[in-house]
Amino acid sequence: MIPDSPRLIALLSGPDQKGLVSKVANWIYERDGNIIHADQHRDHEEGVFFQRVEWAIADSRSPREEADAFRDFGDSIGMRTKVAVNGAKPKVALFVSKADHCFHDLILRWKAGDFPCEIAVVVSNHQTLKSSAVHYGIPFHHVPVTKETKSDAEANQLALLKRYDIDLVIMARYMQVLSSIFLDTWGKPVINIHHSFLPAFAGAKPYHQAHKKGVKLIGATAHYATADLDQGPIIHQAVTQITHRNSVRDLIRKGRDLERLTLAQAVSWHLENRILVYENKTVVFD
Amino acid sequence: MIPDSPRLIALLSGPDQKGLVSKVANWIYERDGNIIHADQHRDHEEGVFFQRVEWAIADSRSPREEADAFRDFGDSIGMRTKVAVNGAKPKVALFVSKADHCFHDLILRWKAGDFPCEIAVVVSNHQTLKSSAVHYGIPFHHVPVTKETKSDAEANQLALLKRYDIDLVIMARYMQVLSSIFLDTWGKPVINIHHSFLPAFAGAKPYHQAHKKGVKLIGATAHYATADLDQGPIIHQAVTQITHRNSVRDLIRKGRDLERLTLAQAVSWHLENRILVYENKTVVFD
Amino acid sequence: MIPDSPRLIALLSGPDQKGLVSKVANWIYERDGNIIHADQHRDHEEGVFFQRVEWAIADSRSPREEADAFRDFGDSIGMRTKVAVNGAKPKVALFVSKADHCFHDLILRWKAGDFPCEIAVVVSNHQTLKSSAVHYGIPFHHVPVTKETKSDAEANQLALLKRYDIDLVIMARYMQVLSSIFLDTWGKPVINIHHSFLPAFAGAKPYHQAHKKGVKLIGATAHYATADLDQGPIIHQAVTQITHRNSVRDLIRKGRDLERLTLAQAVSWHLENRILVYENKTVVFD
Amino acid sequence: MIPDSPRLIALLSGPDQKGLVSKVANWIYERDGNIIHADQHRDHEEGVFFQRVEWAIADSRSPREEADAFRDFGDSIGMRTKVAVNGAKPKVALFVSKADHCFHDLILRWKAGDFPCEIAVVVSNHQTLKSSAVHYGIPFHHVPVTKETKSDAEANQLALLKRYDIDLVIMARYMQVLSSIFLDTWGKPVINIHHSFLPAFAGAKPYHQAHKKGVKLIGATAHYATADLDQGPIIHQAVTQITHRNSVRDLIRKGRDLERLTLAQAVSWHLENRILVYENKTVVFD
Repeated sequence: MIPDSPRLIALLSGPDQKGLVSKVANWIYERDGNIIHADQHRDHEEGVFFQRVEWAIADSRSPREEADAFRDFGDSIGMRTKVAVNGAKPKVALFVSKADHCFHDLILRWKAGDFPCEIAVVVSNHQTLKSSAVHYGIPFHHVPVTKETKSDAEANQLALLKRYDIDLVIMARYMQVLSSIFLDTWGKPVINIHHSFLPAFAGAKPYHQAHKKGVKLIGATAHYATADLDQGPIIHQAVTQITHRNSVRDLIRKGRDLERLTLAQAVSWHLENRILVYENKTVVFD
Repeated sequence: MIPDSPRLIALLSGPDQKGLVSKVANWIYERDGNIIHADQHRDHEEGVFFQRVEWAIADSRSPREEADAFRDFGDSIGMRTKVAVNGAKPKVALFVSKADHCFHDLILRWKAGDFPCEIAVVVSNHQTLKSSAVHYGIPFHHVPVTKETKSDAEANQLALLKRYDIDLVIMARYMQVLSSIFLDTWGKPVINIHHSFLPAFAGAKPYHQAHKKGVKLIGATAHYATADLDQGPIIHQAVTQITHRNSVRDLIRKGRDLERLTLAQAVSWHLENRILVYENKTVVFD
Repeated sequence: MIPDSPRLIALLSGPDQKGLVSKVANWIYERDGNIIHADQHRDHEEGVFFQRVEWAIADSRSPREEADAFRDFGDSIGMRTKVAVNGAKPKVALFVSKADHCFHDLILRWKAGDFPCEIAVVVSNHQTLKSSAVHYGIPFHHVPVTKETKSDAEANQLALLKRYDIDLVIMARYMQVLSSIFLDTWGKPVINIHHSFLPAFAGAKPYHQAHKKGVKLIGATAHYATADLDQGPIIHQAVTQITHRNSVRDLIRKGRDLERLTLAQAVSWHLENRILVYENKTVVFD
Repeated sequence: MIPDSPRLIALLSGPDQKGLVSKVANWIYERDGNIIHADQHRDHEEGVFFQRVEWAIADSRSPREEADAFRDFGDSIGMRTKVAVNGAKPKVALFVSKADHCFHDLILRWKAGDFPCEIAVVVSNHQTLKSSAVHYGIPFHHVPVTKETKSDAEANQLALLKRYDIDLVIMARYMQVLSSIFLDTWGKPVINIHHSFLPAFAGAKPYHQAHKKGVKLIGATAHYATADLDQGPIIHQAVTQITHRNSVRDLIRKGRDLERLTLAQAVSWHLENRILVYENKTVVFD
């Protein structure tokens, strides 16, 4: 193994068929690549095959050309195929409102070298986090949103995503719903985080409701945003214990910690090309 | 402290008022008792006070008389009051169907000395667990339940609870709903266990639904049974992580472990007189 | 995929080399097999490659012959190779002393269909669990052990393992150390469970020491037994929270739950051929 | 209850004796105070009594005078007694080196209103975190430490603690050992955080050792610093699961998350006056 060779990471999914693992491994082997990791999964009920494969390419080859060639190969065997060049840094936009816990957490992890990406822009419907963004050296754009201006605001947001050449939007406690028009037009992934309870609570002030119901657990769920609010494919979930001694304020504080950790984990898996989505659920090759 | 003196455990709840802790402590002190543990809680929004106090009574006094006297004292200060004599062993009935994981678990813990109670009878709508109950030396009664015979069956069950002088019913995966008439007539606590999901799933085959939705956590909730199915006061909740690699069968197996542990913890707290119920929720003095 | 075809599960490990994934996949493909799961791992520092691969063999072929052929193939590419036929049920011996929590737990899981094995015999240095073993319908052998008789006792144990054609020994709280002579002679896997603490405690009564030190966590570790006591390759570890309110008795009780769950998980992974051992550590393809 | 009355929080510990709960409750009641929370614990083996009591004082009284009076009362009944006025904000010094994860985490929680304290100064043996401290508006002092200058450096640190009127030192990944002379001279609490493993590893590069050993859990322990390195009273411990797929770098990253959360929880309990120390262990009234 030549550890410093450029690497490619491919995610494949499609109808199950005999010999898929062999075909993929052969393609790589014949082009002098070396598989570093490979993980497969089959959904037997749906008859779908999933694979994540990471390999070192031959020194003589260009990563970009190999990636293109693999995509063609994936097509030829009937698989939906994504290929990323290891070391490529997707551009990320953070959408925020006033709450800052996920905002700081993501940026500090990024600065610590945990996230292979570039946080290229912060977009907010409030001015609250402007000075912090500036201190971190990240461009900040204020796009106010009201009921009346929502479609204009979303047009502005889409223009910013284009201008900054964004690959991933993270809703880091952004308190507006993104319309299905926005999501369709944008067409790339959006990761969101929200609180979760057992049992679930609809409506406003969920922590107050959870406290009133006397739940013994609170949770957080990170998922891909879809037009169906908070019902997109689940990436990660975590919970923490609650007792009668905890006030609503404690619940909110514990909820913040859950949200930070759960969102950071989901973002990390996404950036490492570990997530495949199908039938509104995820396969996470962790 | 005289560790071998008889002990009383009292649970008090009622409208908050100044000096409650002091009044209770004084009552005990003046009768030569010694407080071993005491734990208080206030629900500030509801203005309710809760206390669990455990004390060694003076050697010269009778536990039963002291318990009665404390109940009278509780009344006199406007508190709902329960008093248990430490070492008294409440009688428990296990309601079961075919599933045996909670059944074995509870009995083995009891035989290991973990539960201060007597498991006096097993009642089931099936014959499946009869021979195991007999091996454990516990009387087993088969009370079949059909739609038509339900009210008769419940009358039989109530007669058994009376005959065995039962203090607590545990639904150890008993797959029938107890009617509100049963619960009202019986009038003593019933602990139930059920699975929990984020998000929640209504209807049949919840593990299949959870698998289809791609949840990353499954959970179990132990609660007191009330006429409002699965909506009674929550005692304890636990969860475990799930991945795409887990089959429906894995989910069911992991669910069984959660159910065993969650139910056993709830039963343990109940038997140690650690739980107070109000406003459809619990205070657990763990 | 033909779900009802016989399946093989192979575990391979050995020096890393280019094209291993491809070679294995091809071998299977060329013999009309179909890979159901495959998982690889590389230890980059040690330069070792690990693979677990599960495949459905062609209907026309015999599982046993395919298994033999794959072993030969594994040899030919320089890999240490184990092959199991799916559905084959290895024979297990439980070694126990007086404590019964792991004993009951393992047997009940096995009876619930969780473990693909046959629990063929219980061996104990005490008579305590004899009647329970008999009730479960499992042969029980009493082999007393004293300092003086230890080597004779181990000879008896080895004879029993041979007589029952045992593949795996589980020390389910068996409170004797197995000598290195026993382990060498036996030559097959032994799974053990022991408590774990942060910090660690040497010597007797570890729960008393942990309580005295005021630890906030207790744990359990399942591992393969080696001549170096409690230092064999770790399979699984779990912990639970402790507070100052917990007595030594509580710690022991919580420790029992940890031991049961941790040992059951380790046994499950072993029986599903998910564990590879090297350099005194494990790769667990969960 | 008058929620806006000033509150006092007292921590008492000392030889167990009959009537302690009653005496404390009476003292408060007779001075028109109202107990909001009270929690007791007895170490039966050591014969020591512990109490945390929080009460609203009468409007007519001065918090400071009541606190002094309670201290005198505590002395009179033979109890070691600390009293804090609710809302008083102890002054905190952060000791840091180059690692910034605990540093940012503590400051952001403080700015979010989670910690009732004032972070008054950052002291470091490196310049690395200077600009961040300045951005947060917290004075930063660089006190380099070498083997030769250690005692001078500690004298400088002590002078800073005095100058800023510090009540609590938090070692937020400060990579120097504080000498017993420093700790004795300082005489107030120091909270430290360190990684923990099962089994434990001595010497350098513990994450590398843990990886080599193949542990399945890593942990973090927050404790009060004492002259006996990393052996002070444990406040809080947490762990996270590890698999063979995790690199040393993953372990370090997961360790950082554990350290942040564990230290933050310990600091929170300390600042809310929830911790009593005795016999080198803690009682945490959470």
